[in-house]
Amino acid sequence: MSRLDSMIRRLMSQRASLDWAVGAVAGLAGPVLEFGLGNGRTYDHLRTHLPGRDIFVFDRHVAAHPDCVPPEDRMILGDFRETAPAAAKRFAGQAALVHADVGSGDLAASRALAAELAPYWAAMLADGGLLISDQPIVRDDLLVLPHPEVLPGRYFICRRVARDDAHGLRLQRERSSLPPCGLGDRM
Amino acid sequence: MSRLDSMIRRLMSQRASLDWAVGAVAGLAGPVLEFGLGNGRTYDHLRTHLPGRDIFVFDRHVAAHPDCVPPEDRMILGDFRETAPAAAKRFAGQAALVHADVGSGDLAASRALAAELAPYWAAMLADGGLLISDQPIVRDDLLVLPHPEVLPGRYFICRRVARDDAHGLRLQRERSSLPPCGLGDRM
Repeated sequence: MSRLDSMIRRLMSQRASLDWAVGAVAGLAGPVLEFGLGNGRTYDHLRTHLPGRDIFVFDRHVAAHPDCVPPEDRMILGDFRETAPAAAKRFAGQAALVHADVGSGDLAASRALAAELAPYWAAMLADGGLLISDQPIVRDDLLVLPHPEVLPGRYFICRRVARDDAHGLRLQRERSSLPPCGLGDRM
Repeated sequence: MSRLDSMIRRLMSQRASLDWAVGAVAGLAGPVLEFGLGNGRTYDHLRTHLPGRDIFVFDRHVAAHPDCVPPEDRMILGDFRETAPAAAKRFAGQAALVHADVGSGDLAASRALAAELAPYWAAMLADGGLLISDQPIVRDDLLVLPHPEVLPGRYFICRRVARDDAHGLRLQRERSSLPPCGLGDRM
């Protein structure tokens, strides 16, 4: 598979995740938070499909197409590791959707960054809110949801378990202790 | 349509064009010339699907993924306007395929650049060779070919009319003098 094929698969998985999330959060109030503006493609997609929804975007700097730059009061500039803790307090339990597209060419660094930010994302999300991520996230309070149009390993959908849902949390914990899908068959 | 949708449509049209061209030049000897390395996605696609074919790449500088950097003797650095004339002499009538992805965010500048380079691309192509381009090209010696998976206006396929094919050239000239498809119906 060439890098062109790979990019198309990534973008289609990304779009399928976001399109599903747009429908899934229709009945859930709260802002959308995006970590990683990049060139503004997904910000444009989210604002197109979620008109009227507050969208706050985090990135180190603005390098987006001029048409896709968020308003100044919705753009939080800085290193994610520095802006996420304050955002977790500001948006605690409020976000309907967090879209985290924080990966770089360095896989290990990308995974490490996402693992470090995940507790903040979980804190920002409302009960039942969604985390759409370009990195896999393993947490008791984030239930991984498969999606037929999202290629495994390319994009990830998680739902925030309700904070008082001890049953859901236990179920998720039990699932997390199992070997990953497919691996068990060979053991 | 969001910028995410638009990018997916562009990449799929690009890939469909290149995949078709790969098959279409199977029986035609000669190098592949790519104008615009960018991040190396299409270079990677072409070298994957045309193993053994000489691929020369032109760009102002190398900003590709480290895996997708052409060998030094196949990478011609410099402004297209400066490198194209020499390349038109070096590869005169030889290229089986020219892939020109020279557009920037500035539509008028992209069109002007492609119009300026088109005579050189036509000169490089072997008779029957293909020009795949992100900009529309109108020339008597380049026959525009529609393709069902390539969205009109997103990517373009042309075949170099044989240099001694007066009939083909005349046909193409007659077609060029017609109004664009669809426009005539409303006149």
